[in-house]
Amino acid sequence: MAPKLSSSLLLFLYLLFLLTPCYMTHRHPLDPLSPSEISTVRRIVKASPRLLSSSSLSFQYVGLDEPDKPDVLSWLSNTAARPLPPRRALVIARIDNETHEISVDITNHAVASDAVYRGLGYPLLNLEEQFAASALPMNYTPFIESVAKRGVDMKDVVCTTFSVGWFGEEKQGRRLLKILCFLAGETVNFYMRPLEGITIVVDLDVMEIVEYEDRVQVPVPKAKGTDYRAAKQRPPFGPRTKPGLVLQPEGSGIDVDGHMIRWANWAFHLSFDMRAGAVISLASVYDAVRRTRRRVLYRGFVSELFVPYMDPSEEWYYKTFFDEGEFGLGLFASPLEPMTDCPANAVFLNGYYTTQDGKPAKIERVFCIFERYAGDPSWRHTETGIVGELITEVRPDVSLVVRMVSTVGNYDYVLDWEFKTSGSIKFVVSPTGILEVKGSPYTHTNQIVSDQHGTLIAENTIGVYHDHFVTCYLDLDIDGTENSFVKSRLKTVRLTDGSSPRKSYWTIVKETAKTESDARVELGSEPAELLVVNPNKKTRLGNEVGYRIISHGAPAASLLSDDDYPQIRASYTKKQVWVTAYNKSEKWAAGLYTDQSRGDDSLATWSERNRRIENADIVLWYTAGFHHIPYQEDFPLMPTLSSGFELRPSNFFESNQLIKTLPNKHVNLPNCTNS
Amino acid sequence: MAPKLSSSLLLFLYLLFLLTPCYMTHRHPLDPLSPSEISTVRRIVKASPRLLSSSSLSFQYVGLDEPDKPDVLSWLSNTAARPLPPRRALVIARIDNETHEISVDITNHAVASDAVYRGLGYPLLNLEEQFAASALPMNYTPFIESVAKRGVDMKDVVCTTFSVGWFGEEKQGRRLLKILCFLAGETVNFYMRPLEGITIVVDLDVMEIVEYEDRVQVPVPKAKGTDYRAAKQRPPFGPRTKPGLVLQPEGSGIDVDGHMIRWANWAFHLSFDMRAGAVISLASVYDAVRRTRRRVLYRGFVSELFVPYMDPSEEWYYKTFFDEGEFGLGLFASPLEPMTDCPANAVFLNGYYTTQDGKPAKIERVFCIFERYAGDPSWRHTETGIVGELITEVRPDVSLVVRMVSTVGNYDYVLDWEFKTSGSIKFVVSPTGILEVKGSPYTHTNQIVSDQHGTLIAENTIGVYHDHFVTCYLDLDIDGTENSFVKSRLKTVRLTDGSSPRKSYWTIVKETAKTESDARVELGSEPAELLVVNPNKKTRLGNEVGYRIISHGAPAASLLSDDDYPQIRASYTKKQVWVTAYNKSEKWAAGLYTDQSRGDDSLATWSERNRRIENADIVLWYTAGFHHIPYQEDFPLMPTLSSGFELRPSNFFESNQLIKTLPNKHVNLPNCTNS
Repeated sequence: MAPKLSSSLLLFLYLLFLLTPCYMTHRHPLDPLSPSEISTVRRIVKASPRLLSSSSLSFQYVGLDEPDKPDVLSWLSNTAARPLPPRRALVIARIDNETHEISVDITNHAVASDAVYRGLGYPLLNLEEQFAASALPMNYTPFIESVAKRGVDMKDVVCTTFSVGWFGEEKQGRRLLKILCFLAGETVNFYMRPLEGITIVVDLDVMEIVEYEDRVQVPVPKAKGTDYRAAKQRPPFGPRTKPGLVLQPEGSGIDVDGHMIRWANWAFHLSFDMRAGAVISLASVYDAVRRTRRRVLYRGFVSELFVPYMDPSEEWYYKTFFDEGEFGLGLFASPLEPMTDCPANAVFLNGYYTTQDGKPAKIERVFCIFERYAGDPSWRHTETGIVGELITEVRPDVSLVVRMVSTVGNYDYVLDWEFKTSGSIKFVVSPTGILEVKGSPYTHTNQIVSDQHGTLIAENTIGVYHDHFVTCYLDLDIDGTENSFVKSRLKTVRLTDGSSPRKSYWTIVKETAKTESDARVELGSEPAELLVVNPNKKTRLGNEVGYRIISHGAPAASLLSDDDYPQIRASYTKKQVWVTAYNKSEKWAAGLYTDQSRGDDSLATWSERNRRIENADIVLWYTAGFHHIPYQEDFPLMPTLSSGFELRPSNFFESNQLIKTLPNKHVNLPNCTNS
Repeated sequence: MAPKLSSSLLLFLYLLFLLTPCYMTHRHPLDPLSPSEISTVRRIVKASPRLLSSSSLSFQYVGLDEPDKPDVLSWLSNTAARPLPPRRALVIARIDNETHEISVDITNHAVASDAVYRGLGYPLLNLEEQFAASALPMNYTPFIESVAKRGVDMKDVVCTTFSVGWFGEEKQGRRLLKILCFLAGETVNFYMRPLEGITIVVDLDVMEIVEYEDRVQVPVPKAKGTDYRAAKQRPPFGPRTKPGLVLQPEGSGIDVDGHMIRWANWAFHLSFDMRAGAVISLASVYDAVRRTRRRVLYRGFVSELFVPYMDPSEEWYYKTFFDEGEFGLGLFASPLEPMTDCPANAVFLNGYYTTQDGKPAKIERVFCIFERYAGDPSWRHTETGIVGELITEVRPDVSLVVRMVSTVGNYDYVLDWEFKTSGSIKFVVSPTGILEVKGSPYTHTNQIVSDQHGTLIAENTIGVYHDHFVTCYLDLDIDGTENSFVKSRLKTVRLTDGSSPRKSYWTIVKETAKTESDARVELGSEPAELLVVNPNKKTRLGNEVGYRIISHGAPAASLLSDDDYPQIRASYTKKQVWVTAYNKSEKWAAGLYTDQSRGDDSLATWSERNRRIENADIVLWYTAGFHHIPYQEDFPLMPTLSSGFELRPSNFFESNQLIKTLPNKHVNLPNCTNS
């Protein structure tokens, strides 16, 4: 029986509901800043006495200043009773040409701290300053003359921004960007039509062109064949396939509750960060046997994306981009297109970043989440050994994919976190989009006599050799916070004593890394399995519970020389796997201030401290790499390539979780009519 | 207007149709033997004068004796005008304890040749002799006593067959098998319950137990927790997911025409062989720009599957199986289960093998073919650089999968060939099914003091370390028969002349393999791309047309010592990639007669001839390997693991084929009711 409520009480409750900030409903300490929180942060920063006297303020990064891990775990241990940790924002801003790190206490509406950063490197670039810098050449007389000299139309020119890197300059100079310009005109694929030979340098703090050079003139590749829009295609058309849709007769199994996602045996928190993009937190898997949720991944996200090009010439040498630390994977996230970027059964979530002026800006459909039915079995067996019986038992594989696409200029990176009912977590990065090409006088390989640092992929178009190194931060907390990193090395044993008709076999030798120097791994250098285990938790049989990391795709390590400047900045790319002691501030593999960084704050330098990592809170870093030699098939836009890894439970469960999964009752093909 | 036909003419035509053997309708020189052809072969062999005097005849292998490649290509060049090459069968039979290679001319109903094979090794084992051998212990008194001694019930005992290998015996002895027995009882998963310690050797030609030893007694692991059948599961159940179905509102794009499969831009021939399983032939891709089909793969199939175990003890040392050459991937193919092994939109094909008696036997649903809609984009780009426009162009990926599952005893291998509209061909092997385990006295790791050669995955159950090496035969004919193998090695170039602010970059150095010794590659030993090119065919820009091979999954090479007997038999597993000169007889990486082979006929020995392979008809061999360290999650049945490769067009097309693919018109979610 419902209690009787007076209408005035109802009105009061209704008003209370309206007045309660919406973030109170789905509240989690790791939730990203809501639009209203971003606005609050802006108001607090702008109202601070120190700011009132400043002449310029530019927000470069605003994000959640996450509570300390013990506070989050303590809150989690009793979410009903414990108060939420205070909400704080980290603001990185340029104020009067200085970099400020401001901690804003949102809960108490106050600036908690404001420190000027005087170290090396600069913060994330914001979108507005890049737009402004790209526009400068349009009214810059020497550039207008260069364009005229090339006989092309100024109205077709499109300029974009490129970070300048660091090449041994001793003094930290100005906050600079290079501008490269291209020709659109009859195509939207201007990246295929560089105005080669022109160097434009902009000082961002004064927003002026400070260097200009028009060194060489190179033919601009033609527009024909470069446009990728469907409407621009003419016969002969490419291969056709029939459309397909995933239908879920019993509905979706995805539960989106604020930023918490629950699906099958998984639960995790998904948030958006303007630098990292998707951040997975507190991923835990339900263990039906122990009747409990077990922790797997405290936090996982892409930490850096290093893309060095291999052309040492004047206009190309500096192209050694840190797409995340300089440009922001979140800031450049593309709204996902329903039915093509993600299947029909996907759900979409929005994300919010902060503009240069500190205001919240929405990216619609920044994530999609869908159940993948790829048509593969998750396990199977046919048994013919039992007389009179033919036993076939199969379970189809269904997994949950969390997808984001970051389009950092020309390249699109499809970034997937995939959760499997077996307990595995997969990460897959699939570059697609447009190559960065160099204008060239050549139209046929027989004209080429010297190294062009790339492949002739179209007339006057060199697809320049480059790498992509995608580094993931994986704060694994396998069944608890204290973990160890174990290398199971496969060693051949020779048999010479005649004890067996065999002369050899292999066995495993387990080595637990004591300190960080034990845990720098070049994949493929020796046969080994790499595990993160909890040495304090054992299975019924006495095996340490753990997860192992399995590479999908051939490993790639940087081939640059150790003393080359971009390599000094990305020295961690010589090894694919590192393990460090957890330190809340160590999140960005190439440092917090990546623009013009010098490698002093990076994964490799943290590892040099050689901290103890045995039975400790540790972070695993994994770099999925591609050495990218372009081919003509990458013109005018490349099909996806993929690489990644799987974190697979390894003596984590007592047995295969999926055997006890009942089959779905037979689902018939439904009768359908198109709506 | 239809011509007038008299009713008697119609009757005549109808009878002609009925009387024409069905194989005349869908005829291709590479079609597998039809059931009626198998019966014909049996009649011809049984009627041959030589056979009439023999006392025993056992068919071990019967398959198409494929026409010579020039004859097939010549037929293909004008299928309407040219007659089919004569149909021949290769029969390998045991006749009076000798191995015969018989060539049967089906077209002319005659034995073309019959030669006794006196070399090393024995043919494929047939199913019936394995069933007979497995039954022998049931009436063998010493074995009955061994079972009684273990206190278990004879009615629960299940025995299966194991090949014996070769361990340095000088004289070629008898055709032997080992029998291992297990306990079923309350489980169908008898593989988890070995009767450890008993060795039984059967002489197949006399079908008698010729050696018996009961060396040690080890507890038989319990049945509880081993059964994988849905009906046997009790709460707590495993993770549940919602069912999903792929719906194709415009129908399927797959055209099955006899054994020819056409889909999107691909056409290929698919046949079934009792040894190899699925054989892909004459795969060609339509080039819309050149308006022609272009040849890619003359023939591709799994050539061998080597699975050595790493326990040198008396009962385990010999477990070094060649699952294909000894047992037959086709012979052990499992009928695929609709809706679980393959999705709802799959089509299924049957296969036929030959029994010991020479009769045709059907394997229903031995292949499935389906269009995969995994939810991923095949390419995409979002462009924000054009003022006033937000351009997003995405095409969803749809591919065609040809699947077979071979269940060689305990293990199930899901074997997929995947064709992509981009022009790529992928091969993926996914082991699942049941581990081969060793009975053990141990129930907890703290009891273990010495190397057990495996992981304690359940009480009294050691999952023994082993490898899986799946070797593919890839007779690539890129745009024609004459091809070359090119290694594009990535080399770091040091810059010391101050010509650039950079100090290094990488470039590629192309090396064309002259002879077979130049083309033995250990993957991962250096950064390189591996290509098969046609040096006689260039793109418009002058690049050699080609395909490159991209590994999916970490490469694995055998770790056995070179002088170990199983390694001598599988010496090719030390390198993952080999290229040989095409030779029609060189199909099986571990030799045609793999049972008890000694390595004298194998990929590595052929390669030692060091034939010229530049601008020649060449075959690429690729081994996908797994070093398998079992974990508790593999008990009682393992979730799939995957490895494989992609053959990706690389300067084969003038540009990305998929840009000119028009998007499917927007397909709405249909209105459905469950039938």
